[in-house]
Amino acid sequence: MLINHEDIESMPHLYRVAFINSLSGFKSANLVGTADKKGLTNLSIVSSCTHIGAHPPLVAMIIRPHSVERHTLENILATSFYTLNQVHAGIYRPSHQTSARYPKEVSEFAAVGLTEAWRQDFAAPYVKESKISLGMALREHHHLSINGTELLIGEIMQVQLPSECLSQDGFVDIEKAETVALSGLDSYHRSQRLARLSYAKPDAPLSEIE
Amino acid sequence: MLINHEDIESMPHLYRVAFINSLSGFKSANLVGTADKKGLTNLSIVSSCTHIGAHPPLVAMIIRPHSVERHTLENILATSFYTLNQVHAGIYRPSHQTSARYPKEVSEFAAVGLTEAWRQDFAAPYVKESKISLGMALREHHHLSINGTELLIGEIMQVQLPSECLSQDGFVDIEKAETVALSGLDSYHRSQRLARLSYAKPDAPLSEIE
Repeated sequence: MLINHEDIESMPHLYRVAFINSLSGFKSANLVGTADKKGLTNLSIVSSCTHIGAHPPLVAMIIRPHSVERHTLENILATSFYTLNQVHAGIYRPSHQTSARYPKEVSEFAAVGLTEAWRQDFAAPYVKESKISLGMALREHHHLSINGTELLIGEIMQVQLPSECLSQDGFVDIEKAETVALSGLDSYHRSQRLARLSYAKPDAPLSEIE
Repeated sequence: MLINHEDIESMPHLYRVAFINSLSGFKSANLVGTADKKGLTNLSIVSSCTHIGAHPPLVAMIIRPHSVERHTLENILATSFYTLNQVHAGIYRPSHQTSARYPKEVSEFAAVGLTEAWRQDFAAPYVKESKISLGMALREHHHLSINGTELLIGEIMQVQLPSECLSQDGFVDIEKAETVALSGLDSYHRSQRLARLSYAKPDAPLSEIE
């Protein structure tokens, strides 16, 4: 079926939000851990984390300043540090619960039953239950005037991961860590590998990387 | 295991690219269809498409100007129109093959065996074999000075999808369309739904959306 721009314009608000959120494909699911200058922690699930480069090692994310993510945004702008913690199949329900609109003085860690983990050398809280997590330093901040969202680009300062997930060529097997994929606003998925494919060249067939 | 910033700095180039590409979580897999002003088509797989808002309906993507995606970037900047075509399990191999460095005069459609589909009312080519595809109009363009990449934000002008994938609440079941998720540079995955979870509220348990 074909849905055109006028059809989208006339969709009821929540229907449209669910519909448009489904269209970009599968999304990453990460918990963003932050703290304010007094040390009060905040945790929120985001689906917009995107790889943007390896030299330097960068991850971008989009934050909506009028959503539940606003405390996250305030903390990152105040401290410049945050953590990204991959959501896996064992914690997807409490992770989703962080999207509830808790008051500023409530830490989502305690509210949803996830555990703060601090490392001596890093100024933002990790999620103890996560298997793959990144310590991030804010590097660039763009205001996207078209819809009032904020694009934050951070540099990866440290990585925690299970050693059995790290392959000889640098690939990290996030499926082995049971990392979930998100679709739409609320649909959580396990994955099942089809294949890793070789670097594509114009005149050579693809092969599978074992 | 803990990998710190110095460890990342000292990784060999290709190892580091594979490693960093794995860390943001699962990624979307879309084929970007474009044409130049003479009508020569181009097709490239991108893993950076990200939802950034429903009002207006927007999808962002990152393009590396010195990569095989440069023809895509040139065409979008020249014409302002492009298509995004979700990669599904039946076409992930030819889709990956579009990442080979073909000369400008070669259309990846023909080179990899995918079919151009034109709609009378849209100025960029669709992929006939894709099940869920979007017609996009360029709306905003940011240069990310930190690593020389380009952020393109487009508005969704039309959507083609199988009617059986559209739920009553607007959610599109991309798993039913066999859309794949990507991890790292080259790992393609099917999905298996854990659950759709209800809108989270501070004082109510989550329920599953059937």
